[in-house]
Amino acid sequence: MRDAASSRFVIDLGTEGSGDIINLNPEIARHAKLMRGAGVLHLFVIGSTAALTTIEYEPGLVKQDFQAVMQQLIPDDAHYHHEATWHDDNGHAHLRASLIGPSLTVPFQEGALLTGEYQQVILIDFDTRPRRRRVIGTIL
Amino acid sequence: MRDAASSRFVIDLGTEGSGDIINLNPEIARHAKLMRGAGVLHLFVIGSTAALTTIEYEPGLVKQDFQAVMQQLIPDDAHYHHEATWHDDNGHAHLRASLIGPSLTVPFQEGALLTGEYQQVILIDFDTRPRRRRVIGTIL
Amino acid sequence: MRDAASSRFVIDLGTEGSGDIINLNPEIARHAKLMRGAGVLHLFVIGSTAALTTIEYEPGLVKQDFQAVMQQLIPDDAHYHHEATWHDDNGHAHLRASLIGPSLTVPFQEGALLTGEYQQVILIDFDTRPRRRRVIGTIL
Repeated sequence: MRDAASSRFVIDLGTEGSGDIINLNPEIARHAKLMRGAGVLHLFVIGSTAALTTIEYEPGLVKQDFQAVMQQLIPDDAHYHHEATWHDDNGHAHLRASLIGPSLTVPFQEGALLTGEYQQVILIDFDTRPRRRRVIGTIL
Repeated sequence: MRDAASSRFVIDLGTEGSGDIINLNPEIARHAKLMRGAGVLHLFVIGSTAALTTIEYEPGLVKQDFQAVMQQLIPDDAHYHHEATWHDDNGHAHLRASLIGPSLTVPFQEGALLTGEYQQVILIDFDTRPRRRRVIGTIL
Repeated sequence: MRDAASSRFVIDLGTEGSGDIINLNPEIARHAKLMRGAGVLHLFVIGSTAALTTIEYEPGLVKQDFQAVMQQLIPDDAHYHHEATWHDDNGHAHLRASLIGPSLTVPFQEGALLTGEYQQVILIDFDTRPRRRRVIGTIL
């Protein structure tokens, strides 16, 4: 049985905000030795303006297409009551993050994620400024 | 080791429907003593017209902005074949729920969720009438 | 305690692509004997153009309404940089899959999923051609 200390890790990183997409696979790989046997890696990003999902991490999708789709679905320049109340500018960021969701679970086997070759785990920071982000990883 | 009985709980609640958003944190806190050590809380809402995610639980976002975005993405007054077939009025509710998803997983440590200060766990009831809802919580 | 070997299973299936929605419940039921006691079934689809969620599996929703909504949110005939770069035609499929997400977790009790009567577990294949797909199931 694993003890609690060994089954959890933290990824701290900086983002550029504004939809910046970070490939988490290299950071996850650093904790491969925790992923013994067959199990599931649970990931959760703290904060209400960032989200986790998977994507083929190539520039066309992550720098352009994903950004364009989110801008079309939930524009950054529409009127949001959140901003009127809090004198803030990131109403769209909250809504995009709720839509994509803060948690992701990925199966692993002997230290390797069972993802597709073109399927990377990503963090998206929708906030309007560079942020420090913390992702909690738990081995299940 | 936890036994099965102690690692599961149920949250039963009433909603107003029509996109009503309920903050689940107070109900989850009532089960804090089950969340010993480091683990993950799994939540699942039963039914195909409700969903779970996280959001900053403040009126601008939950009463107005989230409702407006969902209405723009999946309008309640468009034509849905589901409604023609079943003489129903909640086609949009089914589609919104599938988009957001019925499950959420959140890490905890010693009884406290490791969420952001402005990141609450919410249930959204997209159905067109008040409903009783059941959320299943499982400690992993 | 379950051993690693018995707590994992694989579902291999063929899809028609183009938004084809497969009801996974019959395949999951074949592994019911792994779901002893109270726990959570974790599912993950390998690949960056397919996704998992729940829906009421009836033709109006899965053959027509869901397809229409996805076409409106992320059209298959818009311009995607992914396609220009890779001489590909499935930019929309990648983006739709990232939006819905590749993982799903469902509680079970004594071999039965704790889902609603009208809430089926589905795989959606957004790719533009028939595909073989693999879903990894893990009992937690």
